[in-house]
Amino acid sequence: MLEFFEDIATELQMVEKELSVVVKTPNPLLTETSTHLLNAGGKRLRPALCLFGAKFYNFNPQRILPLATALELIHMATLVHDDVVDASLTRRGKPTVKAMWGNSISTHIGSYLFAKSLILIARYEYAPLISIVLASTSVNMGEGEIQQIAASFDVKQSFRDYLYRINRKTAMLIAASAQLGAVACGAPKSVYYPLYRYGHGVGMAFQITDDILDMVADQQELGKPIGSDLRQGIITLPVIYALDSARQKDRLRELVAKPEKDEDEMQEAISIITNSGAIERSFELVGKYINRAKQALKELPDIPTRLTLSLAADFVGARKY
Amino acid sequence: MLEFFEDIATELQMVEKELSVVVKTPNPLLTETSTHLLNAGGKRLRPALCLFGAKFYNFNPQRILPLATALELIHMATLVHDDVVDASLTRRGKPTVKAMWGNSISTHIGSYLFAKSLILIARYEYAPLISIVLASTSVNMGEGEIQQIAASFDVKQSFRDYLYRINRKTAMLIAASAQLGAVACGAPKSVYYPLYRYGHGVGMAFQITDDILDMVADQQELGKPIGSDLRQGIITLPVIYALDSARQKDRLRELVAKPEKDEDEMQEAISIITNSGAIERSFELVGKYINRAKQALKELPDIPTRLTLSLAADFVGARKY
Repeated sequence: MLEFFEDIATELQMVEKELSVVVKTPNPLLTETSTHLLNAGGKRLRPALCLFGAKFYNFNPQRILPLATALELIHMATLVHDDVVDASLTRRGKPTVKAMWGNSISTHIGSYLFAKSLILIARYEYAPLISIVLASTSVNMGEGEIQQIAASFDVKQSFRDYLYRINRKTAMLIAASAQLGAVACGAPKSVYYPLYRYGHGVGMAFQITDDILDMVADQQELGKPIGSDLRQGIITLPVIYALDSARQKDRLRELVAKPEKDEDEMQEAISIITNSGAIERSFELVGKYINRAKQALKELPDIPTRLTLSLAADFVGARKY
Repeated sequence: MLEFFEDIATELQMVEKELSVVVKTPNPLLTETSTHLLNAGGKRLRPALCLFGAKFYNFNPQRILPLATALELIHMATLVHDDVVDASLTRRGKPTVKAMWGNSISTHIGSYLFAKSLILIARYEYAPLISIVLASTSVNMGEGEIQQIAASFDVKQSFRDYLYRINRKTAMLIAASAQLGAVACGAPKSVYYPLYRYGHGVGMAFQITDDILDMVADQQELGKPIGSDLRQGIITLPVIYALDSARQKDRLRELVAKPEKDEDEMQEAISIITNSGAIERSFELVGKYINRAKQALKELPDIPTRLTLSLAADFVGARKY
């Protein structure tokens, strides 16, 4: 558990328990795959933000529990669906559900987990905003994923295309998480809007950092091979910056667009990118989003959770794995 | 359009229009794949049942339109997800979304369509039963699909396993369709319960017929190769009956369990099944479910739609393609 989550440790344990109850079914294959997913861990960032958000208004853990669980289920569902890739693109280090059970199972497990989240969300009839926000977020996530596939290996995509995509793929669900815990507790706009904006900033910073780390992290710490985005043709911010400003940008364009890159070509591309200043520029943008997130916090009541969220934002901006 | 749908032709056209609006997005790949799906047609059975159900109580097409559209989107989503199969199992005649765009796109398109349905369903805050029923149905559909994969090539599965699966895979959504149109118009239990039971009977009969036709239909009319279930290891009712009673059941067991069957083996298996009386027994069960469906109709007010639904049930029981 992350240190920042100490305040909500009990509630996060309740979420964990609820998750394991939710995925229990009479079907052994279903229980096995879902349990595998649960045990694979994860930071539980979305349930945590949901709980923290609720601290700003009539905090009631029982009220938030189904929602926090649902948010993690939605996140898990997208992870499983992301693992469904076409043969030529399969290059993962760790055994994923897809690697262990195949595409067909992964597709159904993902949808199953998502459907489970809907049952939990249906409890919030008194706060219809919850289902509306989560439905739109899910649609947008789908658009983001498909846009990512459509744009793969496309060296002409812009900075804006990238922001559009990571907003949909990642930031919106994190923003919704921060917002909806408060909504479930009956908070007014003046509370849940700043929380949404906080979550959005953190979410954008989170994804950009992910994309940077895929390029420069220590392979061991990252737990997967460096450059996996580049290999799959996913063009992330450092690549876009480098394509714009690297001295060897013509060579980089060639390398990035190439569907199958060998080890030497991968090394060459990564070194053009890292030498171009693109990593530093990307971290600058992370910093901007973190600042926006912290700025949004100022509109919230000054309770201890506000400081926790501010520190959590700094942590997201500084994470190295 | 099926003849029975004449009464609701205008409303079904509105559903069609709504469907094409719903799938329009700024993303060309997304629009292209979804439009491909829409144009591939389909009987629009679920929207039709939803509209018919509503005829029994304060019929208000505007109220039902989003729901009817959502039901078709959910159905389309499951079709796309069904098409995600693992390489060794890919044996489809027609170009599916998966065949044209690959597994990864299919997975995301399916989830995207499903998420779109949630936006439509979110409009029914005044009838929370709608989202509860559709959430549970979706969970159950996932269980059915995964159970089908888990049980593939398993010759020890029972009649009950089969019923469990087709209920989840098919009947529940059809039952929900018949039920929820009335629910959306404010109908009481005395109206929407019989409608649910009607839909359930029709749905079970529909799936069993599908499974029979996969074994005996005219290949041209069916639009896909005969025996595709058997080839994929999906064990359907005629197979279960034949494994129980065919004279050559030991040989059949061997053939059914074999992962890769050649043409001769396929022909042999199909002829053992068709000669065992299993097709006739399966049609008998179809008849029973159709009767149950018609029985349920008797509890409803005697409006012209009741006769239409009764004829529609007979049609499902008698269909040959």
